[in-house]
Amino acid sequence: MSRTSFLSFTQLALTRLREQSPLVQCITNAVVTNITANALLAVGAAPAMVDVPDEAGEFAPVASALLVNLGTPHLAQREAMVEAATAASTAGTPWVLDPVAIGTLSVRTPLAHRLLTARPSVIRGNASEIIALSGAGAGGRGVDSTDGVDAAAEPAASLARSADTVVAVSGPEDLITDGRQRVRVGNGHPLLTRMTGGGCALGAVMAAFASLDDDRLATTVAATTVYGIAADLAAERASGPGSFAVAFLDALAEVDAQVVAERAVIS
Amino acid sequence: MSRTSFLSFTQLALTRLREQSPLVQCITNAVVTNITANALLAVGAAPAMVDVPDEAGEFAPVASALLVNLGTPHLAQREAMVEAATAASTAGTPWVLDPVAIGTLSVRTPLAHRLLTARPSVIRGNASEIIALSGAGAGGRGVDSTDGVDAAAEPAASLARSADTVVAVSGPEDLITDGRQRVRVGNGHPLLTRMTGGGCALGAVMAAFASLDDDRLATTVAATTVYGIAADLAAERASGPGSFAVAFLDALAEVDAQVVAERAVIS
Amino acid sequence: MSRTSFLSFTQLALTRLREQSPLVQCITNAVVTNITANALLAVGAAPAMVDVPDEAGEFAPVASALLVNLGTPHLAQREAMVEAATAASTAGTPWVLDPVAIGTLSVRTPLAHRLLTARPSVIRGNASEIIALSGAGAGGRGVDSTDGVDAAAEPAASLARSADTVVAVSGPEDLITDGRQRVRVGNGHPLLTRMTGGGCALGAVMAAFASLDDDRLATTVAATTVYGIAADLAAERASGPGSFAVAFLDALAEVDAQVVAERAVIS
Repeated sequence: MSRTSFLSFTQLALTRLREQSPLVQCITNAVVTNITANALLAVGAAPAMVDVPDEAGEFAPVASALLVNLGTPHLAQREAMVEAATAASTAGTPWVLDPVAIGTLSVRTPLAHRLLTARPSVIRGNASEIIALSGAGAGGRGVDSTDGVDAAAEPAASLARSADTVVAVSGPEDLITDGRQRVRVGNGHPLLTRMTGGGCALGAVMAAFASLDDDRLATTVAATTVYGIAADLAAERASGPGSFAVAFLDALAEVDAQVVAERAVIS
Repeated sequence: MSRTSFLSFTQLALTRLREQSPLVQCITNAVVTNITANALLAVGAAPAMVDVPDEAGEFAPVASALLVNLGTPHLAQREAMVEAATAASTAGTPWVLDPVAIGTLSVRTPLAHRLLTARPSVIRGNASEIIALSGAGAGGRGVDSTDGVDAAAEPAASLARSADTVVAVSGPEDLITDGRQRVRVGNGHPLLTRMTGGGCALGAVMAAFASLDDDRLATTVAATTVYGIAADLAAERASGPGSFAVAFLDALAEVDAQVVAERAVIS
Repeated sequence: MSRTSFLSFTQLALTRLREQSPLVQCITNAVVTNITANALLAVGAAPAMVDVPDEAGEFAPVASALLVNLGTPHLAQREAMVEAATAASTAGTPWVLDPVAIGTLSVRTPLAHRLLTARPSVIRGNASEIIALSGAGAGGRGVDSTDGVDAAAEPAASLARSADTVVAVSGPEDLITDGRQRVRVGNGHPLLTRMTGGGCALGAVMAAFASLDDDRLATTVAATTVYGIAADLAAERASGPGSFAVAFLDALAEVDAQVVAERAVIS
């Protein structure tokens, strides 16, 4: 797909998202549940934080999409993750894996590898997390990435091919790849890293977009672009990390096809 | 009680709430704990999120009121819910049940029915949840209501009578009934549905008001009216869902008897 | 240390915090995880909410500092707390204990005493909590303090001596003591008590500062001063508890050595 095609696709997908209001099941960490649900509501989707064992697997086939985020993987949530990812995979519900802070931590690292077998539609992480999941390195320091996006380009492509998925690497410029094509999105702002959940909520928005079309490279580029543009708008209006978070939710609701055309930086 | 009586009662109750600062124990879902606590603080009450087994039952008799919300009912929280609701019922602490997303989900649906036996003072939900709890239907899609408030009017009244409680149905216009009288509150704004916890935090505010008087129809109408007026004020000042949430907390702290007189829409 | 020395120390510590961006592991309650992480990010530190058993103990030696907050102590989190505090103590990672609402509640009260044996670097609480932990009283009503800071002065000093730690008592004026010297910080604003996590997030900021220097009386005074100044700035710009929370995060990012010099009230 060309730069222009990604742009048109993003415009159409955003419009469709607002018409369909996809229901996104989120099994995510305790720190970001609130901002994740609010980001989904703001962009036009509907959140459902069904993360209890037994219910998680029941819900995944009914949901439009699923997010599994490993940020605070307590025992019951781990069961719910495996149950929901498996059910999603079987039912054809697209799902996004966010392997937060994997690498050396001994609970979440094997869990991430186990979840890979349930074939996520998209994997989203920072450079260190993607490198660790690809088997090429040991991960960063907690949620911080100690590696750059460029260092993750080859591991990301390799992971995308081996897991037959789309991999998105967050950074100053975001990289999205299906193992063949590499797309870079230049939208986004450093203030996103000063707001808790700046990365985690993007995973939920990627899930919402993934429900709209089978071309997961295009839906992931679309989610990243819309999200990044909202951050750009918010940064122009904010006077610090607190007001940025507020302006960001307003901007997520405000971005439309016209704003996408004016501001998207896809290459 | 007449429209005028509900209005006067609401004004008095709000004033009394600020004098007494009732201590509201909340056993609620992971997504909305923060906004729930902030809404209670803003309106003038004091939150206490005591949701650990053993402590939950110890605390309920000491609390002014209790909220039990089924949004993310993990195992330990379920134990805490039953324990606290039972202790509240025995001690005469008023308590509010919010049966989030019940209907088909296999953990929370039987739990809601079990909690009914501990005789909630108020039940709050959207139309689909109330219809499901009354036994008249199967529930909505997650937290979304697929039914309208009017469709829930008869099931709500029937549930109120059978459970000897007050039932509040959220919607574009809120309906509150004790099974005999039906009151409608026209305050509130669609932006409340774009803010996570817009409904859940109302349950906590209903609990705070329920601690002030034994007329639970009147206290529930008062809570709904004050809450809805705060939403009306916030919507006038907001430019999207992010700034709405901020303005809403400011407005909850600002509403007073005078503003209630000017803006209440009770019928 | 003299008043002037505390002031200079605070200025230097704040500058150093921004250079080093200490990684603060937080095992904290469900209500305040989000604001706690956001406060750390705003002031210039990096949060890592690693609170799962097995991982919690692995992470503590790697973290710059640790916060243990007893607000919603579910079983797995209790294990993680003991594990992380012990590992921190062994590895020399400074750690802060926030014994939220202890006194009569039967799970957290013995837990707080058990955690004392892992030798916290700093203990932070309101007057009732500090009095309860020192053994001089029975605690407040949930998160509310029913005692004044002055009533806690002697119990705080006694606790600081017996546990060989620094004790900080929150109130209209904050008191910090190592059992010998008593320092009072007059910055801060009542709106902090209308924002959930106003106290809890301070514990995390104390941990961040504790990673910078072994003089824990000085680092705790520095954290309290910077935090209080941010609240002062925010209160000047806020029109209620919602806008206060937003302005507070902005102000935490904005406070610098110059603002500290102009506004610090240390005695």
